[in-house]
Amino acid sequence: MRKKTKDEGKTLKASCEFTPRFSEVDSMNIVWHGSYPLYFEDAREAFGRKYNLGYLTIFDNGYYAPLVEMTYEFKSPAVYGMQCRVDITYHATEAAKIVFTYEIRNRDTEELLATGRTVQVFMDRDYHLVWLNPEFYQKWKEANGLI
Amino acid sequence: MRKKTKDEGKTLKASCEFTPRFSEVDSMNIVWHGSYPLYFEDAREAFGRKYNLGYLTIFDNGYYAPLVEMTYEFKSPAVYGMQCRVDITYHATEAAKIVFTYEIRNRDTEELLATGRTVQVFMDRDYHLVWLNPEFYQKWKEANGLI
Amino acid sequence: MRKKTKDEGKTLKASCEFTPRFSEVDSMNIVWHGSYPLYFEDAREAFGRKYNLGYLTIFDNGYYAPLVEMTYEFKSPAVYGMQCRVDITYHATEAAKIVFTYEIRNRDTEELLATGRTVQVFMDRDYHLVWLNPEFYQKWKEANGLI
Amino acid sequence: MRKKTKDEGKTLKASCEFTPRFSEVDSMNIVWHGSYPLYFEDAREAFGRKYNLGYLTIFDNGYYAPLVEMTYEFKSPAVYGMQCRVDITYHATEAAKIVFTYEIRNRDTEELLATGRTVQVFMDRDYHLVWLNPEFYQKWKEANGLI
Repeated sequence: MRKKTKDEGKTLKASCEFTPRFSEVDSMNIVWHGSYPLYFEDAREAFGRKYNLGYLTIFDNGYYAPLVEMTYEFKSPAVYGMQCRVDITYHATEAAKIVFTYEIRNRDTEELLATGRTVQVFMDRDYHLVWLNPEFYQKWKEANGLI
Repeated sequence: MRKKTKDEGKTLKASCEFTPRFSEVDSMNIVWHGSYPLYFEDAREAFGRKYNLGYLTIFDNGYYAPLVEMTYEFKSPAVYGMQCRVDITYHATEAAKIVFTYEIRNRDTEELLATGRTVQVFMDRDYHLVWLNPEFYQKWKEANGLI
Repeated sequence: MRKKTKDEGKTLKASCEFTPRFSEVDSMNIVWHGSYPLYFEDAREAFGRKYNLGYLTIFDNGYYAPLVEMTYEFKSPAVYGMQCRVDITYHATEAAKIVFTYEIRNRDTEELLATGRTVQVFMDRDYHLVWLNPEFYQKWKEANGLI
Repeated sequence: MRKKTKDEGKTLKASCEFTPRFSEVDSMNIVWHGSYPLYFEDAREAFGRKYNLGYLTIFDNGYYAPLVEMTYEFKSPAVYGMQCRVDITYHATEAAKIVFTYEIRNRDTEELLATGRTVQVFMDRDYHLVWLNPEFYQKWKEANGLI
């Protein structure tokens, strides 16, 4: 039987709202799938502002955090002008990674429109992959009760 | 033991070349992950032209084929001006789906930069999901020796 | 001497706020110029909501209003995370056109970052240019005291 | 009477081909106006390769060349899959500027779809505007018979 690690399941959550732009809609009159990385990015920004883990915080500590995996599934089309919301969840892990899942919903009906998952790793300024948790990130996890 | 179905493993392949644009590169000086859906789209277009399964063919037969799943993994960063290639593989399935996998490589070194997978379903013009293979798609599979 | 027409100088104004996204910044670390059409579009949307002249209102009356001219000048670079605002001004004209000018400012300092101008015309659903003011647009101008 | 300066009218030309992507088309089924900055960028890249004045050449000499003005006019809609071409013309000027005009045409019919104009200036690596022609640019103009 797999032993549950102490940080498993620990999560932090944030949300942001958006309304699909005319230019994000394709000639099927639904939001083009390639627009979703933008919505996920907006959600990471909102998370970063709420919990102080934004791009500039990471950069100022000497790192980049590029995406290495991205998955999304579309449940129901988003359309132009629909009032939407992205709920983003940070999933604690012992590895030097940032793992988020996403749910996009229609704000009026709470219908689930799409789900997603991204994994980010750390690179130093010379673009070398960092295998151990950067010190600032380790402290951030501690400060947020994640380890 | 799982029984191998007769169409399992049947594939069709196409390729297209691209060079990341300045505007597709972010302030980390690497290609922004949100640009990859464009490269995959270019590959589907190249496939569509080669095998006559493009957006307009699908549309003229009365259907849309929206993406419902997209996954990609980044192995090594693409940079501005790098000579790249997308290899796209169609994977035959009995379901009313279009499944592609993708490999993006540096044309000069053949280094693997990213992999991806997309799943498309069929919707009729009233945006209803179609569960059975549309007739034109069934014939297309037959004509290409996939079933 | 040029005779001043009665609608000259009549204007309507709206505003919207935005913060440049990470992905809108290029490898010079400034907002890529090709992102500005998005900000202008957001401003037109804000105007459309405030004065009931949005894309869907135009569409529901049987028309498209494609852009036929766009001009912008950059005064000072916008950067990632800067708190910005677009001020949009509608300029009344007797012609069957929608003319907007734009000013993008840093919300903190009120520094002017960019100016722009767009001209839209009307096309019917068969994509034919419409030379006379559509009835709904004529009424909209009257209702807003523009003629 | 205006005196003609010796470099007036001296031009260099290049071209590149493109086919609008599905994702560049909006729900009016025509190419979204915000896609044109990409086509113009592709043309500048083609020019840069042909005449050795690309982004990296400028950067390696210690400069950025951001756009400060952009104008475009749409004559006829481009649509998905249309075979198009951008013709780009460099216009010599004594100022420390890079001025291009653009014509986008349907390759099959030579119909003019859009025209454009961009102006770039030089900034040093500290983002200070450079008023005099950088030495490398002055030499480039001389080598190409423009002054």
